[in-house]
Amino acid sequence: MATTNQQRDDQSNATVYPYERLLSFTIDIFRKIGCPEKDAHTAAVALLSADLRGIDSHGVARLIGYVRLWEAGRANTQPNIRIIHETPSTAVVDGDSGLGLVVAPFAMQIAIEKARKVGTGWVSVQHSNHFGIAGYHALQAVAQDMIGIAMTNASALVAPTFSIERMLGTNPICVAVPAGEEPPFVADLATTTAANGKLEILQRKNEEAPLGWIQDKDGNPSTDPHALKTGGALLPLGGDRDHGSHKGYALGAIVDIFSAVLSGANYGPWVPPFPAYVPMPTGMPGKGIGHFFGAMRIDAFRPSGEFKEHMDQWIRRFRAATPAPGQEKVLIPGDPEREIEGIRRVEGIPLLNPVVEDLRALAAKLGLPFMSN
Amino acid sequence: MATTNQQRDDQSNATVYPYERLLSFTIDIFRKIGCPEKDAHTAAVALLSADLRGIDSHGVARLIGYVRLWEAGRANTQPNIRIIHETPSTAVVDGDSGLGLVVAPFAMQIAIEKARKVGTGWVSVQHSNHFGIAGYHALQAVAQDMIGIAMTNASALVAPTFSIERMLGTNPICVAVPAGEEPPFVADLATTTAANGKLEILQRKNEEAPLGWIQDKDGNPSTDPHALKTGGALLPLGGDRDHGSHKGYALGAIVDIFSAVLSGANYGPWVPPFPAYVPMPTGMPGKGIGHFFGAMRIDAFRPSGEFKEHMDQWIRRFRAATPAPGQEKVLIPGDPEREIEGIRRVEGIPLLNPVVEDLRALAAKLGLPFMSN
Repeated sequence: MATTNQQRDDQSNATVYPYERLLSFTIDIFRKIGCPEKDAHTAAVALLSADLRGIDSHGVARLIGYVRLWEAGRANTQPNIRIIHETPSTAVVDGDSGLGLVVAPFAMQIAIEKARKVGTGWVSVQHSNHFGIAGYHALQAVAQDMIGIAMTNASALVAPTFSIERMLGTNPICVAVPAGEEPPFVADLATTTAANGKLEILQRKNEEAPLGWIQDKDGNPSTDPHALKTGGALLPLGGDRDHGSHKGYALGAIVDIFSAVLSGANYGPWVPPFPAYVPMPTGMPGKGIGHFFGAMRIDAFRPSGEFKEHMDQWIRRFRAATPAPGQEKVLIPGDPEREIEGIRRVEGIPLLNPVVEDLRALAAKLGLPFMSN
Repeated sequence: MATTNQQRDDQSNATVYPYERLLSFTIDIFRKIGCPEKDAHTAAVALLSADLRGIDSHGVARLIGYVRLWEAGRANTQPNIRIIHETPSTAVVDGDSGLGLVVAPFAMQIAIEKARKVGTGWVSVQHSNHFGIAGYHALQAVAQDMIGIAMTNASALVAPTFSIERMLGTNPICVAVPAGEEPPFVADLATTTAANGKLEILQRKNEEAPLGWIQDKDGNPSTDPHALKTGGALLPLGGDRDHGSHKGYALGAIVDIFSAVLSGANYGPWVPPFPAYVPMPTGMPGKGIGHFFGAMRIDAFRPSGEFKEHMDQWIRRFRAATPAPGQEKVLIPGDPEREIEGIRRVEGIPLLNPVVEDLRALAAKLGLPFMSN
């Protein structure tokens, strides 16, 4: 389950907007920077899925960041996204520097179509930009009775085990599996101890981070949430060697290789940064950032009904696992995000006031009216 | 990289055997319990790959365990291993209760053949037994210019986040990727903080485990390496919720679902135990234990030579990452195991004296001569 970071943040300085209003505002922004109508809609739905699911760090708060990429000439809002190589079960997609929010749904759709024909589909993507949350893309396959897989690399914030150099992004992996009567299993995880969004919350609150999340520029354990600004690094899942950080490093590396070495995108320290003001790395070996998607048709393995009965049993048995003292229950990956989505679809999406001010300024700059709530 | 646990163990009470001698002894044992010649060879090579790579907990030290499974009627040494369902890119294999050491190579071969035809191949396996180390199976694909993926579930030793109940095995994942001039990238990792083999070493030495590896029966952090015998549990990679244990739990769950819910094997707390003296779980929903294998042809994505140049660059760049003070260098997943294999192929494989005694007793019981070294 991903970081539902809004839960942990202070709600007192937030304004709540209905999803539909936020959606139409976001579509307008994407249209204004040149996206065709259909792409603007696709991008807005993908972006806001993060807000709906409580991953606020990856939602509309980043809209201004996407616009800045376009202003800097790094995001192409009218891309020619196309397959550059394929077999019956695989494809490589060139995103033509499009928004990842548009490129990723295109690529996932190809994975799904290939799975329909030959059982599974696997698509590696080059020349893209950030795609929002992995969970949104993986869930497209679940709606088609398939297991969905989505991953992406990102600019380097993470030091491999034994190093002080930032070499990998937080490189998330999502695996989403349909069930029957139970809701789907959705594991959506950054391959670090803590996602960057969690750190951002601590930064805003000026609170210390737990040991094991970050190290300082000399590789010492640090609790300073600002340590990344002074040469520090996020730590791979595991935290340190004794607690398996070499495994988190390996998982982040797998995401990097599948997303970028397989597709021809940039990898490791060469992945372009999301903030448009950060200079591009020198000597980049590929094009843009990379993603990787998979779709596996359930009935390519066993009858779908049979599988779902067993997934339901799996989920119910894990929900019924004896809780530790003081804990209410065992969660199934995807539970927290789904619960928040249920609430926010009805009650609206709370945006922190600095985010609202950013969006207001963005609207003014682009000559668009701002939402009233 | 997996636990090269021999490195950390005491070598003083060990006897060294040449690989070839150990291999022919192991083949003789498997033949004696009824394996056809070819299967005996396949099983012995797969089993001893663990000793060669330094994962001694999963190697010949377990031979007696496999024999006991056969004695208990739980391992079929003359199985009818067969595909029970397939599409161009997928298959489900029924292992007919065979040794996982024989079933897994059969299934991996099918994944490779499907990849040859349609780009990728994905095989889920039911009704199997333990398959040794995941790395061996994944590497079969690398030899064919493919990315290899192998995973397996195992009997429950791991408590999910917020629970005190053992619900998942150490459920390893291996991803092996070919390179050009550089050796392959081989990430082979249990989805726990520490593999069970590491704990066994501490048990033998009566040393304490680091916090974050295990919890006691009440869910308290524990340093007692024997805590599993008194109702404790291994912890998912991450250790606790603040350090991402929900991610390790999710990864172990993915392995369980791909290996068993997709194939029709047993999952969660119903996975049959490896020790033949441990009673079988009641109400088992499937057959045997489950595995999952994947093979992706490199040139189904981009020309193999091009990919390998970039993998070489990836590996070299990561090797050159600035080491932390006091550390020599950053390792590439697979480095430690390959280094040990290089040494052991020449110098032989050290077996701890209790393991030698077990093997001597096993040989005597089966009426076979024991190795002289």
